[in-house]
Amino acid sequence: MDKIIEPKVLKGFRDSLPEQEIRKKKMFKELEETFSSFGFVPIDTPVLEYTDVLLGKGGGETDKQVYSFKDNGERDVSMRFDLTVPLARFIAANKSDIIFPFKRYHISKVWRGENTQRGRYREFYQCDFDIVGSDSPAADIEILMMMKASLERLGIGGFKIYLSNRGILTRFLEINGIQDKSPEILRIIDKLAKIGKEKVKELLKELTDESKCDKILDFINPEGSFDKTLDKLITLCNGDNSETDRLKIIYKALKENGIEDYYILDPTITRGLDYYTGLVFETFLDGNRDLGSVLSGGRYNNLASLYTNEQLPGIGASIGLDRLIAAIEKSEDSKKAQAMCDCIIFNIDDDLIGALYKTAGEIRKKGISCEVYPENKKLNKQFAYAEKKNIPAGVIIGKDENESGTITVKDLIARKNYEKIKIDDGIEKIVSIVREVKVNGTT
Amino acid sequence: MDKIIEPKVLKGFRDSLPEQEIRKKKMFKELEETFSSFGFVPIDTPVLEYTDVLLGKGGGETDKQVYSFKDNGERDVSMRFDLTVPLARFIAANKSDIIFPFKRYHISKVWRGENTQRGRYREFYQCDFDIVGSDSPAADIEILMMMKASLERLGIGGFKIYLSNRGILTRFLEINGIQDKSPEILRIIDKLAKIGKEKVKELLKELTDESKCDKILDFINPEGSFDKTLDKLITLCNGDNSETDRLKIIYKALKENGIEDYYILDPTITRGLDYYTGLVFETFLDGNRDLGSVLSGGRYNNLASLYTNEQLPGIGASIGLDRLIAAIEKSEDSKKAQAMCDCIIFNIDDDLIGALYKTAGEIRKKGISCEVYPENKKLNKQFAYAEKKNIPAGVIIGKDENESGTITVKDLIARKNYEKIKIDDGIEKIVSIVREVKVNGTT
Repeated sequence: MDKIIEPKVLKGFRDSLPEQEIRKKKMFKELEETFSSFGFVPIDTPVLEYTDVLLGKGGGETDKQVYSFKDNGERDVSMRFDLTVPLARFIAANKSDIIFPFKRYHISKVWRGENTQRGRYREFYQCDFDIVGSDSPAADIEILMMMKASLERLGIGGFKIYLSNRGILTRFLEINGIQDKSPEILRIIDKLAKIGKEKVKELLKELTDESKCDKILDFINPEGSFDKTLDKLITLCNGDNSETDRLKIIYKALKENGIEDYYILDPTITRGLDYYTGLVFETFLDGNRDLGSVLSGGRYNNLASLYTNEQLPGIGASIGLDRLIAAIEKSEDSKKAQAMCDCIIFNIDDDLIGALYKTAGEIRKKGISCEVYPENKKLNKQFAYAEKKNIPAGVIIGKDENESGTITVKDLIARKNYEKIKIDDGIEKIVSIVREVKVNGTT
Repeated sequence: MDKIIEPKVLKGFRDSLPEQEIRKKKMFKELEETFSSFGFVPIDTPVLEYTDVLLGKGGGETDKQVYSFKDNGERDVSMRFDLTVPLARFIAANKSDIIFPFKRYHISKVWRGENTQRGRYREFYQCDFDIVGSDSPAADIEILMMMKASLERLGIGGFKIYLSNRGILTRFLEINGIQDKSPEILRIIDKLAKIGKEKVKELLKELTDESKCDKILDFINPEGSFDKTLDKLITLCNGDNSETDRLKIIYKALKENGIEDYYILDPTITRGLDYYTGLVFETFLDGNRDLGSVLSGGRYNNLASLYTNEQLPGIGASIGLDRLIAAIEKSEDSKKAQAMCDCIIFNIDDDLIGALYKTAGEIRKKGISCEVYPENKKLNKQFAYAEKKNIPAGVIIGKDENESGTITVKDLIARKNYEKIKIDDGIEKIVSIVREVKVNGTT
């Protein structure tokens, strides 16, 4: 006998078993339906691209994590490590076919050779949505509203979207003559939640004098409400300006839609990355801030500058799917066993296979998924199969039933039998058993 | 200014634009719903695996096409080139978590560095479904029925599933004492459709004597009906045997379901690959045989032998998605312009943004996708945007409308306006415009 190969999976990679995969597909479907309902359209890009196209001028931390290699044609190629760079490349390559403002979403896998000791995976999904080609406050509002709609569609109840405008901070630093320290200050502010106010002050003191430190600390300290915080920012910026005006417009629209309570103006939100220029936001689940932001993003003024001279402002957000899945898996709802099929027809007589499949077809017509057990095995074995797949309704068709045009329906949850009832009535019974389970779960 | 990087895509790879991606997602959704309705469950596996796990004892033609490289940890890794090898590896690795008989489907990308001159892509989708862990005729019947249901769900009308049983051919070759030539004979028979009967005979003559050639030619020549062909095969095999019995069971069940006309017994179907052992099948679209088989597969008696000593018989099928997409794209239905969104609210007054989004929310509640144009641009520019996205219904809300609690609805296909009607009536109007388009298309 040949030697067996150990069926091992690479470190940082994992199989997705049916239960996980069903849950993930349901999640993606809910997100896609939400995005589509806002007029967003899907795209896809190749998993492999030219390395110099993906990494651009490169040289950063990310580069070292990218899966790069020479293909059989000696081309330098890389697997995509995010969906933002491919979006920029896609837009530059397909400009004439794209309808601007371009509202697109993209849910797909990306790969990074990250350190798996930190609990990270090397293959994971990203889910991005962007509006590219518009600098309007309406685009900001739309993204903010779609963020809320997406999380609600996923059944995530308590969350808040914390937002700010990088332009206001920039203006404030200019007024105080410390704009040259902007990147360092941003990085320090970004750490506030982690290291606390005292430590932030200490770090700021290394950059500027005490009075300016205090001003910065005042700047990043949210007041009791969106309006009050905004008023303070206006004061600290010596009056209204285009950035604070934009926040006013955004907040007014949120209020007119009665959803303003989901949005917190929080000047500590800066998003470390350099390319954001306007609105920035992060989303935390109520009582679960430690999980980190589950939905973040912001406005950028030039997405595709690596690939085209055309200026393409936009705004985008990215869902932290792994974090969300972790949060959802902890919820009560997800602990309910999932039915992998609604109904099973047991096989007690091989001569009747044709009839079993015919009945299965009738049941499917009612929108009920239905499988036939493919072998005439002992019934307790077939029952065990049904139980493992959490199938709520069962059907038995023996010679008696087949001759009399009836079926025996088994409620596999309540463990009740409805013997030899007419096929139509039996199917109705199955529909009601399945409906019951969809409402109450199988356990 | 920095030098621009050309946003080029690798040869054999391609971007998927929204219109293509929407079509593809719809197709996958229809397939997944069909598979689920038969109780099949989805799985996923990593795109990257250890090279020795994916290629096994390897050395074949496929190996040269595989994207293999050393990762940053000096591991030999490869991108998956099909979904069958990963299924075998998955089953061996997750045996204790899998519920057998295991009915799974998997729709995902695979990569092969094929010669692009033959019109092949190096990144493409595969769609496989299998029942693993059952050797019963019922599993064969189920796969055959699900094949038909899948194609019908995709709106593909005319097709025939050509099937045979490799075991019968094996038996026939044994009876005639030419089983040692079996691989060569299989390969020749497989070419019949391409090279014709005369050429097949010529090639067979190189292997065996004339009388046996004639017998083989008689064997592979289908008679007028399933039953007649089967009778001939029984005669040529010196009487009934387990393989012909199985075909009888299958055909009886197909007849009992009234779908036997979709299935043709065709002994020329052999499927070149070595691992099939029983039923084999291919599917051709009526009047489009040149396209090749769009849905093929067969029964194997030991899927995961590379990875486990456990015997795992099964049956599986694979949809030729690229071929099917090509066929669907040629159809009349696909030429209809697709609405990328159902309804658009035009922006003629920035002060009303909040109200526009509120109305959009009301419209979405009716299951109508609705977007708001994010900028107060000239209306003809906004109309052009709506036209490019094939949006059938438009809404205008100006100061008048906002004050009087009305909206103006535009039927963008019929070019009719319904001015300043009450919001509820307006939404009803939008629903009916969208419904009309879903039935008749936009053009």
